[in-house]
Formats: sequence, structure tokens, C-alpha cells
Amino acid sequence: MSGAPGHALIDTLRAAIGGPQVLTRDDHGDLAAWEQDWRRRWRGQALAVVRPGNTEEVAAVVRACAAAGVPIVPQGGNTGLVGGGVPDGSGSQVLLSLQRMNRVRALDAANLTLTAEAGCVLQSLQQAAAAEGLLLPLSLAAEGSCTIGGNLATNAGGTQVLRWGNTRDLCLGLEVVTAQGEVWNGLSGLRKDNTGYDLRDLFVGSEGTLGIITAATLKLAPQPAAVTTALAACTTLADAVALLKLARGRLGAGLTGFEVMNAFSLELVARHFPALPRPLPDAPWTVLLEQSDVEGEAPARERFERLLEAALEDGCVHDAVVAESLAQSRALWHLRESIPLAQAEEGTNVKHDIALPVSAIPAFVAECDTALAERWPGIRLVDFGHLGDGNLHYNVQAAPGIDGAQFLAEQEHAVNTVVFDHVARYGGSFSAEHGIGALKRDELAARKHPVALAMMRAIKRALDPQNLMNPGRVL
Amino acid sequence: MSGAPGHALIDTLRAAIGGPQVLTRDDHGDLAAWEQDWRRRWRGQALAVVRPGNTEEVAAVVRACAAAGVPIVPQGGNTGLVGGGVPDGSGSQVLLSLQRMNRVRALDAANLTLTAEAGCVLQSLQQAAAAEGLLLPLSLAAEGSCTIGGNLATNAGGTQVLRWGNTRDLCLGLEVVTAQGEVWNGLSGLRKDNTGYDLRDLFVGSEGTLGIITAATLKLAPQPAAVTTALAACTTLADAVALLKLARGRLGAGLTGFEVMNAFSLELVARHFPALPRPLPDAPWTVLLEQSDVEGEAPARERFERLLEAALEDGCVHDAVVAESLAQSRALWHLRESIPLAQAEEGTNVKHDIALPVSAIPAFVAECDTALAERWPGIRLVDFGHLGDGNLHYNVQAAPGIDGAQFLAEQEHAVNTVVFDHVARYGGSFSAEHGIGALKRDELAARKHPVALAMMRAIKRALDPQNLMNPGRVL
Repeated sequence: MSGAPGHALIDTLRAAIGGPQVLTRDDHGDLAAWEQDWRRRWRGQALAVVRPGNTEEVAAVVRACAAAGVPIVPQGGNTGLVGGGVPDGSGSQVLLSLQRMNRVRALDAANLTLTAEAGCVLQSLQQAAAAEGLLLPLSLAAEGSCTIGGNLATNAGGTQVLRWGNTRDLCLGLEVVTAQGEVWNGLSGLRKDNTGYDLRDLFVGSEGTLGIITAATLKLAPQPAAVTTALAACTTLADAVALLKLARGRLGAGLTGFEVMNAFSLELVARHFPALPRPLPDAPWTVLLEQSDVEGEAPARERFERLLEAALEDGCVHDAVVAESLAQSRALWHLRESIPLAQAEEGTNVKHDIALPVSAIPAFVAECDTALAERWPGIRLVDFGHLGDGNLHYNVQAAPGIDGAQFLAEQEHAVNTVVFDHVARYGGSFSAEHGIGALKRDELAARKHPVALAMMRAIKRALDPQNLMNPGRVL
Repeated sequence: MSGAPGHALIDTLRAAIGGPQVLTRDDHGDLAAWEQDWRRRWRGQALAVVRPGNTEEVAAVVRACAAAGVPIVPQGGNTGLVGGGVPDGSGSQVLLSLQRMNRVRALDAANLTLTAEAGCVLQSLQQAAAAEGLLLPLSLAAEGSCTIGGNLATNAGGTQVLRWGNTRDLCLGLEVVTAQGEVWNGLSGLRKDNTGYDLRDLFVGSEGTLGIITAATLKLAPQPAAVTTALAACTTLADAVALLKLARGRLGAGLTGFEVMNAFSLELVARHFPALPRPLPDAPWTVLLEQSDVEGEAPARERFERLLEAALEDGCVHDAVVAESLAQSRALWHLRESIPLAQAEEGTNVKHDIALPVSAIPAFVAECDTALAERWPGIRLVDFGHLGDGNLHYNVQAAPGIDGAQFLAEQEHAVNTVVFDHVARYGGSFSAEHGIGALKRDELAARKHPVALAMMRAIKRALDPQNLMNPGRVL
């Protein structure tokens, strides 16, 4: 506890949202579930963990903290990757968990919209949509525990971006508690609304630094009649890009996934999960294609076969398999999804979440691979990701025999400098889908266009003049 | 001219961008081409019209005006509908035309992106994409003269929004001259980039009030193999909404257009353009459906026929035609596009550009029609628009025998109040795709959520503290 001012605030918070929803270390012991991120990379200490149950309670908490000059760290499912949702170590920040705000407020099937509170777990919203024959086209590894509020705060990406865009593209309206503790009801279900500045997209991706998203209206789509999967073996990354072009032309919006995996990333999977099949064992690059179809399985599979025949003829693919059943489709996706787990089994590495123009990816990877190998002989690249979006998880693994944790501790900054310098040269982004948080704040300050940085800081001062909303994150 | 300070600024501007590109009334006579909007609803007077040829010149103009405390009104093709791009009558504002900045800077076919300067005419960009077999999926009535900078500044909509979104959804990156005359180079061609606040979407739709968009990187798509059109007759608007649901499920992303027209709007077309065909003359509501297909004409037409059979069986459609050729498709679109022209021939009416949740449209129209008819017996509704986006041009025509111009002059405000009150009750927007400009500024102040308004004003003050960027527009 941090003395009398903290005590007075905690009394106010207890009065505002009920004693049991204000947790302190003194009264409740270990608060690690909120104070530490799930990968255990950051461990902070909160003045208190507060769990408001509705929008008015969130607003009351913010007003009380603003009056006391106490910072607030909003948190959803605590599945973030950049340390944006855990308090710092000062013991002076209030951790505001949105998890009790988990109601679906409305599902309008004719308008294809879902309005849900920030604390809803993503998977529960996917299920609510599916129950009406509809699709919420946002899918990512953490979907079983991440919340939609966190997805919005970080503009999460995932595996459906190629067809449906990032979380931002799925959001039609927001309800937000401002830094002053006022409630903005912008929960619109409209596809067109040109009435003033786009505040919605400003809050989406702002990582809790401008205000707190308490609810959102999201776009839905009809469920496709069938989803099928294929795997293709490419000799080079340029071949994979050529296949992407071919697939876009022939499948159009039916192409809903295009993931790439290099040989080393699938070797790790084979090493740590030997029971998994390995359909194209000799491919330098393996592409997973997903197709969604409004008509059904058979026409989709036929279209896949025609596409892959054309790709074999073109030479950009040298082998391919089309899943013959839903089970086979799932097995192919399972391979892709096992890469992060296999990495974790293998030990720590230096992780990246970069984006590039798709056209620049082959040259970028060739040059950056070479530059890294020159400086760190023997290093291996776990190179995989959402090629259709130009988004690679270009992870750098120490040479055989070198301890991963030590390599990370000693070389992370130098590795990042090489990678991000190459990214910048090709017009790319050093944070594609994970955000800035605490982890990449210095990179943002160093690498973002200075005019853009100045505008961001001006907006932050304008909307949060006391700098109480998730301070020290992003800016 | 406005005395010595104006003269000094004009000398500075001439030195910065060349004498011939700084036009004044004294030296060049009538400047109506820039001072008046194309519908001749607003006529202002500029201190000068300046025509910079590149980004650095735009920045120099802004710096000179900022130093002199002189406001700037940016203008593209001058095709706006809300008076946002013409100067006021004071003679104290500099009109900055972007029309000389009309270069395509890059077209990256493998990345599906086009980078173009703000003054490029939309149609020329559609053609540049088509020359590479690609589609720039933004299409609106003014495409032959509007500029992409204006489209971005107003977040223009049009007829492709159902599939591709508004202009905002097509924009990946921007180059902007700030109110301080600095250049922000944010011309990214990335599908994912979570490095800080979404400045791009803040500038898109801000109507020149925060800074000047000088170039943009836009998304392209492969050209579809075929585009086909059908017309369906519905008894009620609820039937049209039911048809939309059916079409979305069966055509998925292949459904690229869904326009509705009431009987009166097509009667006006028949009256003023009697040579045009009228395929479904007795329909209370006519729906135009457009389908784009990656495979070809035949499968698309087949799919249309199956859809319309199902709709006839369901009862939501009572008659339909599928275009048998490109010429027939064009003729059906021509009907739809003739409605605004037929309206102009018929005389003035009270125009609206509203959006609603699609699910609310039948009830909204029924109630609002009744409320208007009670107050103004005999009035007629020219009700047509982009039903797939929930966007109606719900235009109110005076009763037969009453002069349209007089009705507009005397009743516009009262009509708007009835319409916008109903729009608000159904969670809609009083400006779907045309923006705010000067025309709807008072509506914005009166109808926007006060917390949103306060945030917009704070952002405006933060980015344009001198209030020199298109003052008096939007806010």
C-alpha cells in the first residue's frame, strides 16, 4: 500500500463499485493473475485491482482516479505480447480489469452486427455469432482467453486478416469511457457515417492510452457453406508470392487464408510433436491456403485443384495436397498453429512481428538472412506467418549449442537493430499486429516519422492531459 | 484585395510557388471556377487561389499562411455536396487547389497498391489500375472530375461500398501537410501496422480541417472475370431487405452492388428520359443487384438465376430480370444513375444522405413517410440509394403544384428536423457519405454525442491551434 492518499482512493473505489471488486495485496494476497503477463516477461505491482461490472462503474473508477491523480492500466484477458496491460512496478497504478463486463448486448442478424461488452472472450463471441449462422471473422491463437476489448485496444490481427482485415476493420462503433470519466456512446451499427472525425479508429489500437473501450459493435458475415484447406510446396519465397497472386486472381474473396512456413519452423514442429503428419517434408517453403465458399465443399475443392494445377504448371509450386475432409483441414492448420508451441519447447528466441509490402518480402528476407548470418554465424530463422498480409513472425534462434535465453539477453537489441533497419529500408513496420505497449516504446520513439510522433503526442495531451491512461505505454 | 497584409502574403506565395500559380481577382478576373461549388449553392470570395505543384510547395504555402494568420481552404475537383471546399465570402481565405498534383507515383501490382497524388482524378486512377488488370474499387457519380484527395478528405462512399467499404477502407497510407506546414510521410503500403495512433483514419474524413492530404497509397484488387447485373421487383422495402439477406448468403463477396429505387424515383426517370427502358414498370420497389465473379459470366448468371428463383419462391421478389449482356447490364445501371439527373430536371427538392442499420430501414421509412405526409400533404419521396450499406438518399419533393425552390427555401429546416429526428430514433446518421462541410455544421453541433464533439474539438485545437485549416467547416 502506498499511504494515505492511496487508502482514501481505495475507500472511494469500494464505495463506487462495491468492496469485493476492489482487490489489494494487503487484503487479498498475491495479485499475480493481473500483475504479471502470461509469458511472465513483465511483473508489476498494482495499488489495487478493480473490477467494475458496467460502464457507469468504469466511469466512476476513472473519475475517482482522475481526482486523485492516480494512473489507470486497463486490462482484458491479459494475453498481450508487448507488456501493455500490466502495471509498472511502482505500486501506484490502478489495474482496471474489464473481465466482469462480459455481456452480449445485442445481435442484429438482419444488420449483421453484434454489440458486446469489452470483457467478452473472443471465442464466446464467435460462438454467439455461429449460433445464428453467422461468422465473426476474427481468429487468433489466444481466442479462448483474450477479450474483445483487448483485441480492439491492440487492433489485433490473426489468421483472417487477408479477407476480413484487422480488428479495426470489423468495428463499426464503440462505447468509451474518456480520461475524464465521461461516457461516449458511439455504438453505431452503420456501414456509412461521415459525421465528424473518426474517433472510433483513433481509440482502436491506442492500447488504453486515450480512454477505456467498454463495448463495441462488430461486423458479422454469413457463415460460408464450406471451408477447405490446401498445402503447397514452394522452392523460394518468391514462388510463394507468385502463388499468392495466382490464388487471389482465381479465388478472389474466397481466399481466406495464406500462411507461409519455412523448413526450419516445420522441423521444430516435427522435433517436438513427432506424432503430427508432415505432408510435404522436403519443401523449403510451405504455404497453407484456406478457401471459404458460399456454395459448398465440392466446388471449392475443384477450384483448389484447378488453382494448384496452374501453379504446378507455372512452376511456382512443386508439390501440393488438398485436404479431403474437415479433419484433414484441421490437421493442416494444426501444423501451422504448432509452430509457436514448438518454438516454446525449443527455448527462447528473438521474436519479431514485422510487416512489409508483399512485393518486398523475398528481397527483404534474402538480405536480412544474410546480414544476420554474417554477424551471428549459425543462427536459424523461424520464419513463418501471414504472407497474404505481408506479416512475418521472423524469429531469430541462436546457433546450435548457444543458450537461447542468454542469446536473447545479450543480443536482442543488436538483432532488432539489424532486422528493423532492413524493415525500414523496405517500407515496412516493426510492429504489425502486436502493438507497442512497453516493449516497443523506444523503437516507436526512434523509428516513427517525427511529424507523426508529434501529432500522436499532441492528441494524447489533448485527450488525456493528466497522462493517467496507461502512462508509459505507446508514447 | 484586402490591403497590405494580404499583398505581402501574396508576394510570399508567388515567391514560393511561382507567380502564375497564385491567382487573384485583381489580376485574373473571375475566380468562380474555384470560388463557387458546381451546384452553385455557395459562392465565396478568395484572397487568392494558389495552385502548388508538389508537396513541398503545399508545405511552403501552409507555412506562409500560418505565419500571416491567414486561413486555407483546400480544394480538389470541387464536386463536394456540402460546401466544404469553397471559401467563405470574406475575401480573407486562401483557396489551395490540389489539381496540379496529379501524378501516379507508383503502382505495385504484386502488393496490390497504388500511390497517387491528391489531385489525381478518380477515373484516371481507375484507368491506371485497369491497365494492369487491377481494380480500384471506388466508384461514384462524380468520378470523371472528383479527385482522390477530395474522396479521402470526405471519406466518399458510392456504389462499391457493400463489397469494398468507403474510401477510408481503401486507404493504406497518407502523405499530409500539417497545419504547421510540416510534411508527414505516412505512405505505407502495409496491410498491418500497429505502430501508434491511427492518424491515417483521423485525416481521412476530416474535410481539410486538420491538415492537407497531398498523396495516398490505396488498395487495389484483381479485376473480376465478369460483372453481371439483375433487377428485382419487390412489393415492400422489407422484401428488399429479405432479398439482401438471401443474396449475401448465396453470393457472399460476389455481391458487389445492392441498390434500391422506389416507384416515384423511377417515374421521374421515365418522365424525363422516356427513351430509357423500364423493365419492371409496376414494382413498388426495384432492386438492382450486381455480382462480380472470378470465374466468368456463365457461372455468375447461373448463380443469379438460382438466387432469384429462391427469392421468387420465398415471395420477397415477384418479378426479375437478369442482364444477358454487358450492354444490358449498363442499361440497368443507367436507370439507377439517371435518378439524380431526373430529379434535377424535375426541380429542386430537400435532399438527404442518411444511413441506418439495414434492419431498421423498413420501419424508419414507414414512420418517416407518414410523419412527413401528415405535415405536408401530397409530398413525394424520391427514395433510392445503397440499401446494401443502409444508405438512402431520402429526398423530399414538394406536393404537385408547389414550387420546389420555394418549398426548399421555406421548409428545408422543418423537413430536416422531422427526418433527422426519425433517423436518430433508429440509431442512424444524418450524413452517411457526403460529409458535414458548411451545410451540416449546425446539425453536427446539435446532434452529435456531446462527449464525441468535445473530443473532436480538443483534437482540432491540438493539431490546428490557430484554426486556419478550413475554418468553419465540420466544427
